[in-house]
Amino acid sequence: MNAPLPSHILGAVRPVPAPMLQALQQHFGDRCSTATAVREQHGRDESTYPITPPEVVVFCESTDDVVVVLKLADEHAVPVIPFGVGSSLEGHTLAVQGGVCIDLARMNQVVRLNPEDLTVTVQAGVTREQVNREIRDSGLFFPIDPGANASIGGMSATRASGTNAVRYGTMRENVLGLTVVTAGGEVIRTGTRAKKSAAGYDLTRLFIGSEGTLGVMTEITLKLYPLPEAVSAAICQFPSIDAAVRTTIQIIQMGVPIARCELLDANAVRAVNTHSHLSLQEAPMLLMEFHGSEAGVKEQAETVQDIAREFGGTDFQWATTPEERTKLWTARHKAYFAALQTRPGCRCQSTDTCVPISHLAESINESIAEAETAGIPYWIVGHVGDGNFHLSYLLDPNDPAEAAAVERLSTLMVERALRLEGTCTGEHGIGLHKMPYLVEEAGAGAVDLMKNIKRALDPKNIMNPGKVVAV
Amino acid sequence: MNAPLPSHILGAVRPVPAPMLQALQQHFGDRCSTATAVREQHGRDESTYPITPPEVVVFCESTDDVVVVLKLADEHAVPVIPFGVGSSLEGHTLAVQGGVCIDLARMNQVVRLNPEDLTVTVQAGVTREQVNREIRDSGLFFPIDPGANASIGGMSATRASGTNAVRYGTMRENVLGLTVVTAGGEVIRTGTRAKKSAAGYDLTRLFIGSEGTLGVMTEITLKLYPLPEAVSAAICQFPSIDAAVRTTIQIIQMGVPIARCELLDANAVRAVNTHSHLSLQEAPMLLMEFHGSEAGVKEQAETVQDIAREFGGTDFQWATTPEERTKLWTARHKAYFAALQTRPGCRCQSTDTCVPISHLAESINESIAEAETAGIPYWIVGHVGDGNFHLSYLLDPNDPAEAAAVERLSTLMVERALRLEGTCTGEHGIGLHKMPYLVEEAGAGAVDLMKNIKRALDPKNIMNPGKVVAV
Repeated sequence: MNAPLPSHILGAVRPVPAPMLQALQQHFGDRCSTATAVREQHGRDESTYPITPPEVVVFCESTDDVVVVLKLADEHAVPVIPFGVGSSLEGHTLAVQGGVCIDLARMNQVVRLNPEDLTVTVQAGVTREQVNREIRDSGLFFPIDPGANASIGGMSATRASGTNAVRYGTMRENVLGLTVVTAGGEVIRTGTRAKKSAAGYDLTRLFIGSEGTLGVMTEITLKLYPLPEAVSAAICQFPSIDAAVRTTIQIIQMGVPIARCELLDANAVRAVNTHSHLSLQEAPMLLMEFHGSEAGVKEQAETVQDIAREFGGTDFQWATTPEERTKLWTARHKAYFAALQTRPGCRCQSTDTCVPISHLAESINESIAEAETAGIPYWIVGHVGDGNFHLSYLLDPNDPAEAAAVERLSTLMVERALRLEGTCTGEHGIGLHKMPYLVEEAGAGAVDLMKNIKRALDPKNIMNPGKVVAV
Repeated sequence: MNAPLPSHILGAVRPVPAPMLQALQQHFGDRCSTATAVREQHGRDESTYPITPPEVVVFCESTDDVVVVLKLADEHAVPVIPFGVGSSLEGHTLAVQGGVCIDLARMNQVVRLNPEDLTVTVQAGVTREQVNREIRDSGLFFPIDPGANASIGGMSATRASGTNAVRYGTMRENVLGLTVVTAGGEVIRTGTRAKKSAAGYDLTRLFIGSEGTLGVMTEITLKLYPLPEAVSAAICQFPSIDAAVRTTIQIIQMGVPIARCELLDANAVRAVNTHSHLSLQEAPMLLMEFHGSEAGVKEQAETVQDIAREFGGTDFQWATTPEERTKLWTARHKAYFAALQTRPGCRCQSTDTCVPISHLAESINESIAEAETAGIPYWIVGHVGDGNFHLSYLLDPNDPAEAAAVERLSTLMVERALRLEGTCTGEHGIGLHKMPYLVEEAGAGAVDLMKNIKRALDPKNIMNPGKVVAV
């Protein structure tokens, strides 16, 4: 059993009329599919919602292909859902009003690398691992790492971030410009390859995080960074979440340019110990990475070690070679699967609040207390340098009472995050699941303004309708 | 004589009807003025346009005051122009359709400092120097420095940046959230105090850079940074612009976290020598600043010195004490007034293109050649680490032929920047002057989309009408 679709979803299914289907079949040939398996594959994401398939899936290979779909969709007022690799977490890609899914995975070309400018332009279907593979010889890299090997289009659409954001920022800071097909089927370009601009409204940032509801991004120009001369990693264990978080706060306040600063709670460490036959102390742990010159990373690691010690940090280990670093990060990389195995048959539902860092310990500790009281197993990883953490519940998919309990816990977490001047989503986005949270967070006035923008850019409500804001 | 108002300005003056004026007078008392001197003071900025005064000026002291004005303006469809310190450069604050100027200078309170979160919330009229003065004891600072002691509201409205942007980003990256009064007089809040968020459309970034055309920002929450443990400054002289720019490119490509990287051309250096009785070599010069740990800034300065030497850099001087640093930066700080004095009675008109850094030398060199051919005196400073430079013409305000020549040169520069995949404005904004350039840069389709947004958020076109996009 899956979680039911939330009750706030509005709008009936809008069928694809026969002339439109014929036109799609004519243009796309066997790149247009109505096969059940293909539709079902595209009617899901990594959320716990039931499969909600589109009526048609088309596989686009160019911006022009996308224009063809959008012009037809505009003419017939049919919903369109852009789809990357389907790794979103809040129901973003479910076809709640039917329509046409645009699969962008075949738009997988790195269009242009300009190493001297530290920029690269890629098609929307390129994944982040592919970018880094293809530009490796340039001595540059693209740092944003949300965990999944997501597409750059999907990462742009959800304003993704992840482990490196504390140093390098999120997709918001790392996209220079876009090629977008509008709801009316026009191709526009936003931004330039210049590093900054004060030219008019920031359309780039408007599309980043719009979750496919305002247009389809087909090409994205990214900022790149020089591969650091030296990288070192460190782990350290703490007597409490509080101690680990206080260490983090001081690292940030001292301006240590830490590249990654991740928290694992004792549950996550315990799961990894069992899964990977490790013998880490089953206590909260920080995993850190430092980028810079040889001397610089050494200095950073020493500063951080001093801070950690002040807060009772022990078992400080650090590593500079890639092999040793990978070993230290094992716990982080294996946490998800390790946690799933602690409760056979369970599903994982992740939360994503982000708060000002001074409220982080409070936010985590109260969430833990509530989960413990409810008796729902959970584990935590957090991009704590940014005040963002994921408490993930391990729930029995056959127990509706548990699903309801998790939803209640999740709401309590969001309410607390908002009280603490934070946000309901640091990086996963709104999708279907968080639409009521968005209203609570931004207020009805700001959401009305978002709706006005949605109506102005997509007057027929064909772009991924029923997500982010209900119009 | 001043430059004439450009011909693309549309829309007749919309008078303030008597009932509205009475309501304003009643609410604001002597904070509502129709005195010629006050109106003229508010009908200008630092551009060369003629004074274009509003009909009424009101001095707001709170968000509620702004709401009063906007509700009346909405009811009577009267233009409203937000005004900070009037340091904009492209005619942003001219009352081209008359109306009410909202002076925000009295909204000068630092509302809340949260040092543990590295955030501060200020009213829109607070200047950047005031912010740094008031938070000094916290060990934090706000890095964005556009030169003028602009208001934070004005800097947000124009997406300002300046000398520190190469390390710390622009207003786009350093505003967490806003309080905005919409065109209809509603108060909304955008963003939170969390460092990142994926919650809905990025309204914060939509208002940043909107130049008062979508609403009035009344409170702004800023990111702060720890004062660096060590700061060092350096200057270095080069045989050519090319050599200075190539040095810059390599600094950036090597990932040196340089905090400031400014170019002065030989004309600027010559002017400063005369003005301040210095004896710097009259050659292109880089001025740099490094922030970090003691060891870190030393290492950065050494790396940069090695790079500079490769490109023929000479006279490398560096300084670590505040007094020595100030001395080294004299040339940069005095350049504007020094340049003005090289041509008595002249006015200065600045350009602001920004290009991918690999095209920077080409962009500067061709602009110089054109200025030399035209025989118009000029000088250059550049935030070259970002690919942004200001070639400023020194023009005789009594010679219309010279004004026309400068406009022609400016257009050539913009056309070149766009050809080189750059932007017509790195940091000054569009205002009146660059509206045709914006269409050229973004394309009619993207500008149409901006117009749709403008109409959606300001259906009566009362927010600073006639700027950015013509609706």
